Amino acid sequence: MKTIAILGSTGSIGNSTLSICESYPDRYRVASLAAGRNIDAAFAQCQRWMPKLISVATEELAGDLRARLKSASITGIEVVYGTAGTVQVATLPEVDFVVSAIVGVAGLEATYAAVCAGKTIGLANKEALVTAGEIVIEAARKNNVALLPIDSEHNAVHQCMRGGTPAEVKQIWLTASGGPFRELPLADFEKITVAQALKHPTWVMGQRITIDSATMMNKGFEVIEACRLFDLPAAKVQVTVHPQSTIHSLVEYIDGSILAQLSVTDMRLPILYALSYPERVESSLTFDMKTLGQLDFSQPDLGKFPCLRLAYEAADAGGAHCIALNAADEIAVAAFLAGSIPFNGIARTIESVLSRTPVAHPATIAAVLQADADARVLAASLIGTT
Amino acid sequence: MKTIAILGSTGSIGNSTLSICESYPDRYRVASLAAGRNIDAAFAQCQRWMPKLISVATEELAGDLRARLKSASITGIEVVYGTAGTVQVATLPEVDFVVSAIVGVAGLEATYAAVCAGKTIGLANKEALVTAGEIVIEAARKNNVALLPIDSEHNAVHQCMRGGTPAEVKQIWLTASGGPFRELPLADFEKITVAQALKHPTWVMGQRITIDSATMMNKGFEVIEACRLFDLPAAKVQVTVHPQSTIHSLVEYIDGSILAQLSVTDMRLPILYALSYPERVESSLTFDMKTLGQLDFSQPDLGKFPCLRLAYEAADAGGAHCIALNAADEIAVAAFLAGSIPFNGIARTIESVLSRTPVAHPATIAAVLQADADARVLAASLIGTT
Repeated sequence: MKTIAILGSTGSIGNSTLSICESYPDRYRVASLAAGRNIDAAFAQCQRWMPKLISVATEELAGDLRARLKSASITGIEVVYGTAGTVQVATLPEVDFVVSAIVGVAGLEATYAAVCAGKTIGLANKEALVTAGEIVIEAARKNNVALLPIDSEHNAVHQCMRGGTPAEVKQIWLTASGGPFRELPLADFEKITVAQALKHPTWVMGQRITIDSATMMNKGFEVIEACRLFDLPAAKVQVTVHPQSTIHSLVEYIDGSILAQLSVTDMRLPILYALSYPERVESSLTFDMKTLGQLDFSQPDLGKFPCLRLAYEAADAGGAHCIALNAADEIAVAAFLAGSIPFNGIARTIESVLSRTPVAHPATIAAVLQADADARVLAASLIGTT
Repeated sequence: MKTIAILGSTGSIGNSTLSICESYPDRYRVASLAAGRNIDAAFAQCQRWMPKLISVATEELAGDLRARLKSASITGIEVVYGTAGTVQVATLPEVDFVVSAIVGVAGLEATYAAVCAGKTIGLANKEALVTAGEIVIEAARKNNVALLPIDSEHNAVHQCMRGGTPAEVKQIWLTASGGPFRELPLADFEKITVAQALKHPTWVMGQRITIDSATMMNKGFEVIEACRLFDLPAAKVQVTVHPQSTIHSLVEYIDGSILAQLSVTDMRLPILYALSYPERVESSLTFDMKTLGQLDFSQPDLGKFPCLRLAYEAADAGGAHCIALNAADEIAVAAFLAGSIPFNGIARTIESVLSRTPVAHPATIAAVLQADADARVLAASLIGTT
């Protein structure tokens, strides 16, 4: 029996994790939840899962939740709040496994605290590796903590890496759907509208990640994550465009063999893999090989998708540049969604921020958060000027 | 440094193995060779490799080779012959690793002897698993011997099986090129000519294996080999048609993940994998992922390819039926090549032989060879009657 904490329990990964816990009650027990702002969902999760501890975003929301639990005669659940509350959820002594799925830098401190507390981590929070990868990986090494990726690409790489030793890996290949503009001529990119960019062919996602998919910045972030997670230079992390998203990634070995992982496109699968690792557990998430049909692969066009190129450059520079990449992207995407800049302005804004960012390697989470805040201010000041 | 014996040194696998030994002189040393009937090639291999021991097909050929070595002033190479000679090559005490690549039942005794002598086996001789699989696997278990497959499909499965435990494997998928008649309408199969059947799209091979590829019997044999090698019932060994032959096979796990192996189509790659296992060794046999392009998959049509169905039935019956399948196929293919029976007559002959074969499980190699001889007589007697 593994005892689980979920950071981001009311989000998509959180709900998928709870669905896994529902399917395997003899294997996984939910001990603590970090739930954010959705108090209806947090209350329902308390009723269903009876965690020992739950954290919500603010003191006020914590008061609301306590009142609702009291009026429903639910006792034994401690309600905490804010970053300190999330850290408490992540470091609860009886927890073995922390699912880190809070979106944004908000999840960073709690994830780092969980690593330092020696918990096994199921990692979906990309900022932990993109903005603080060097620090988090070092802490994981020091505390002998396993970081198990629960997004489909890195999870696929993790599976394929079982076919050899890290030293036997020549390079890895992350697959990319290519987004909705894969086949659009370069000349039309400047005119892409918000409505066009919010349509995504394969996954149902939030607005920022949908735009990140359209610019391929999401793949750029994944390149950085892979560099940190698998201790590879950016030159050894390749991207191949695979519109069907059936193969989730590949690992190429020094002898010439390439291993690939494929499966249904369902987040529960990498979550189950991470929760049960090193075992595999029977599931109903079956891919019907008879439907495999046709798989296509091509090279990404860095002319159309400069965000991907910028991510490679940031991956090599490391530290402050990765922080700035993420922060500038968030600001620029918001500006695009607000109609303030065109689609191509996203990359231009980011490039402008990166060019003004000196090489630096913040050594603490606090320094990462400061660099993140600084980059946001810089990005906001540059919106519309590029 | 591993010390190698090669059974079938002048054949395609043998030459590929020597090419690997050539490329990695610090890793692999050739100690003994079984060379068959090509004395020119055997002599050249003696010159180049200076093995301690070489076996040829007959006493007369052994005399020829000794004379040629003497007149070239090459000393220190013992020349032996026949089955006993091949066994001697396979069991030479200083040998660690035996590449078993003699085609046909001729390689069976020596392969079995090598297993019993505790050698690690690189297995390319299909008869060892198709006709004597139960015996060979039991001997390998008893002697704690690793059987490392060096055909591309089973080698791919072996690699993908590193992603979990045997108990975590749900089923495996062998890829098949589908042969030259994949898209031919069923009605035209009866009229297939020898010339048509000898064209094979992807691999350059001998005549029997080329016809076996056209009937998909080769894939049927591979199903049986996979059953034995990976201890799976036939129902867990699936075939998927993949004309590009880029993915060499796949392993489906109980959690829903599927691992696949891809690489260039070059036998040196699985040979190098087997020789260096559990390590991987750097090679120049690189697959250019940028050329991956389009991969297609479909289901085999058992109506067009009854040989594949017959192989599944034989795999389940085991023992004598697998022996009869292989023997009857060899006789029937020879009859087709000689113009005695039509293309569809191959499967009809085999089915007729199988229907006259009682369930039995020969317990010794001698009994396997006897059953093989009996099945050949039966098959020959049925040629042209079906």
